[in-house]
Amino acid sequence: MLKKKGDIALIGLAVMGQNLILNMNDHGFSVVAFNRTVSKVTEFLNNEAKNTNVIGAASMEDMVSKLKKPRRVMLLVKAGSAVDSFIDSLVPLLEKGDIIIDGGNSEYRDSIRRCQALKAKGIYFIGSGVSGGEEGARYGPSLMPGGAEEAWPAVKEIFQAISAKADKEPCCDWVGLTLIFKLYFVFDEWNKGELESFLIEITRDIMQYNDTDGKPLVEKIRDSAGQKGTGKWTAIASLEYGVPVTLIGEAVFSRCLSSLKEERVAASKQISGPSETKYKGDVKAFVNDIKNALYASKIVSYAQGFMLMRETAKELGWKLNFGSIALMWRGGCIIRSVFLGNIKQAYDKNPQLSNLLIDDFFKNEIQKCQDSWRRVVSTAVLLGIPTPAFSTALAFFDGYRSQNLPANLIQAQRDYFGAHTYERNDSPGQYIHTNWTGRGGNVSSSTYQA
Amino acid sequence: MLKKKGDIALIGLAVMGQNLILNMNDHGFSVVAFNRTVSKVTEFLNNEAKNTNVIGAASMEDMVSKLKKPRRVMLLVKAGSAVDSFIDSLVPLLEKGDIIIDGGNSEYRDSIRRCQALKAKGIYFIGSGVSGGEEGARYGPSLMPGGAEEAWPAVKEIFQAISAKADKEPCCDWVGLTLIFKLYFVFDEWNKGELESFLIEITRDIMQYNDTDGKPLVEKIRDSAGQKGTGKWTAIASLEYGVPVTLIGEAVFSRCLSSLKEERVAASKQISGPSETKYKGDVKAFVNDIKNALYASKIVSYAQGFMLMRETAKELGWKLNFGSIALMWRGGCIIRSVFLGNIKQAYDKNPQLSNLLIDDFFKNEIQKCQDSWRRVVSTAVLLGIPTPAFSTALAFFDGYRSQNLPANLIQAQRDYFGAHTYERNDSPGQYIHTNWTGRGGNVSSSTYQA
Repeated sequence: MLKKKGDIALIGLAVMGQNLILNMNDHGFSVVAFNRTVSKVTEFLNNEAKNTNVIGAASMEDMVSKLKKPRRVMLLVKAGSAVDSFIDSLVPLLEKGDIIIDGGNSEYRDSIRRCQALKAKGIYFIGSGVSGGEEGARYGPSLMPGGAEEAWPAVKEIFQAISAKADKEPCCDWVGLTLIFKLYFVFDEWNKGELESFLIEITRDIMQYNDTDGKPLVEKIRDSAGQKGTGKWTAIASLEYGVPVTLIGEAVFSRCLSSLKEERVAASKQISGPSETKYKGDVKAFVNDIKNALYASKIVSYAQGFMLMRETAKELGWKLNFGSIALMWRGGCIIRSVFLGNIKQAYDKNPQLSNLLIDDFFKNEIQKCQDSWRRVVSTAVLLGIPTPAFSTALAFFDGYRSQNLPANLIQAQRDYFGAHTYERNDSPGQYIHTNWTGRGGNVSSSTYQA
Repeated sequence: MLKKKGDIALIGLAVMGQNLILNMNDHGFSVVAFNRTVSKVTEFLNNEAKNTNVIGAASMEDMVSKLKKPRRVMLLVKAGSAVDSFIDSLVPLLEKGDIIIDGGNSEYRDSIRRCQALKAKGIYFIGSGVSGGEEGARYGPSLMPGGAEEAWPAVKEIFQAISAKADKEPCCDWVGLTLIFKLYFVFDEWNKGELESFLIEITRDIMQYNDTDGKPLVEKIRDSAGQKGTGKWTAIASLEYGVPVTLIGEAVFSRCLSSLKEERVAASKQISGPSETKYKGDVKAFVNDIKNALYASKIVSYAQGFMLMRETAKELGWKLNFGSIALMWRGGCIIRSVFLGNIKQAYDKNPQLSNLLIDDFFKNEIQKCQDSWRRVVSTAVLLGIPTPAFSTALAFFDGYRSQNLPANLIQAQRDYFGAHTYERNDSPGQYIHTNWTGRGGNVSSSTYQA
């Protein structure tokens, strides 16, 4: 007599696995249970799974033979090598179109690797976060499947049936790669190019660090950044020395703004942004634009930092070796990056270099990034996304390469309202007052110090 | 016998007028000369104009009768009421299509008024800067005609013939309104609306203030702005108190950048901007967008200023009456404006108002400006024009109305590289450390102070 075949197999009879099986059984699915230590299967069938439709398997081969096609095999084993080892044993037993589901808390990087390797063999891989603990597994977990989307229709019915319900909707839908995890790959990619650095590297790693519930930890961190003081001190020094270190200035102010969390939450409910807030172009190309915007902005920020050092050295009579300073930061320091080597080279080529922005290497790098940079800032501005560091970097770049800026108007205004005098283009160094109104008289006041 | 009629009449036989007549005569034009004190005409004919084709006129009627049609009458009399008085006498003697040219150094505002008044009577008015002094008038002035462009073809031949030549090209072409002078009207218009203020008013006046050569003085002022210290002190205070006063910060840094004039001039020759630098849309609409961007940015700047006062008062235990402060600035102070009355009203309505941006009046004003503001910043970014104050204001606005900002990533990074701990959204006030790498250990470091 032909026995009824199982809807799904589950490997790993620890408490999460057992509870998921019982949950599936409750919803009318017949589950084939297997465990590496096979005695645990019998134990389970004689105890927790007594009087259920759960089917025991004595071996992997036995398990596979008891499954309907396409075969669905779910793993609830320890994340890491155990998952790989089960997959390796399963593959020879499966056919094209069969599905392996990993319900352990695997690293996303591992999941991606497995998904790609299995796809090459015609087998679908789904990695699914299972959230809600033992209780959730038994009576309704939150399930977050991603991976080979082609296999989702074959899994959807079971998953949505056993998942928790909120307002009668199943707490389970195809998530694919989470947005945060996509960012892991973005930063991983960026860390292979011009932006290779400690900070990009750890940002990548932060993106794939999940909290105990399998969700990205970074999403659970309060977006309120305090200050240690170094950014603030640098900004104050730059104001004191009259050097436009605008990126550090904006960075510090952005932290101040971030720390006004309650005010922002309240304001977000009252103040509307632009009507259009979704980017509608080619996302992949735009991510590359963002990389270029970051790179160009980083160059400007370092250029400003070296401007400040140059000015400070001048004021205090220091002799600084800028190339060595760059090199010094290459080890240990959190700003270590391949980029610092380029700075070293720039100062090696020309120890008197007045500004990194006119060094040939950096000039060309910025030229390559310029269009991207402008697209990113203009798009962000239209979509209502604050990018204060990108935009101040670009404003500085455009100001720095401007022969003429509108400061002549400032000087005219100051002379108009306060007789503070101005210089003329044709006689710099001479401070002149104009009686703009015909009423104020010709007596000048003090001059603003540059 | 019918005498040959004059090509043009010139009224005002001071040295500039005489020299222009002789210059025209040299180029084959027959000029009818007239002066209010008629004896001066005879004197001129018997001396400087002896043996020329210059024709004397005994009266305005005589002068007009001796002219070809359309009649061209040029005034070289003292700027101001003398010009108006001659125009008043001329009008009854002229016909539709005749042309009055004012070659004195008249105020542009007067020229516009005259041009409009005469146009209504069918008479064309041209105001022309005449530059180059007596010598220029005699042998080749630079002429800058503007006004009723319809009359230009009838004047062009004479003007270009007598003007100075540079590389064989006449130093005379139709200029219409100069760009700077167009700005006079822009600021004049702005000064009638929400932006009405002392600074807009004097900016308007600066735009129409011409140097001795008839060209805008502001264009001759060196674009290098120094500092008195108040902007710098405010920026430093805002950093000390942790309040994002970003517009004053950017304003001070922009002055620093402006003062690096030589560096900018050098950089402008080496660093290229975007390929497209000309605005191609509707200029009038865009000027209105700029007005809105300025207004919205101004609101943000004041909001930030009041945030700083609020924080300072809190730290130092001051009790500040914000409405009265706004009112106090309405007299005498250079920031006096109608706008300050709106601030007063906002604090009258709600003395505990946490931020001007959520006051109903200002919220609505910004909403009205928002699209314009975004268009201006995004366009400037694409065309390579630095607008650091507009863009930082917009970044602040977009940050302030954001429930979530990416500062969670900063906190994660700090905890990753320095074990500086972070707060979670679900337990603010508790500082947590995560062992992100599995290597760093679980001992936390100090927390960044918000």
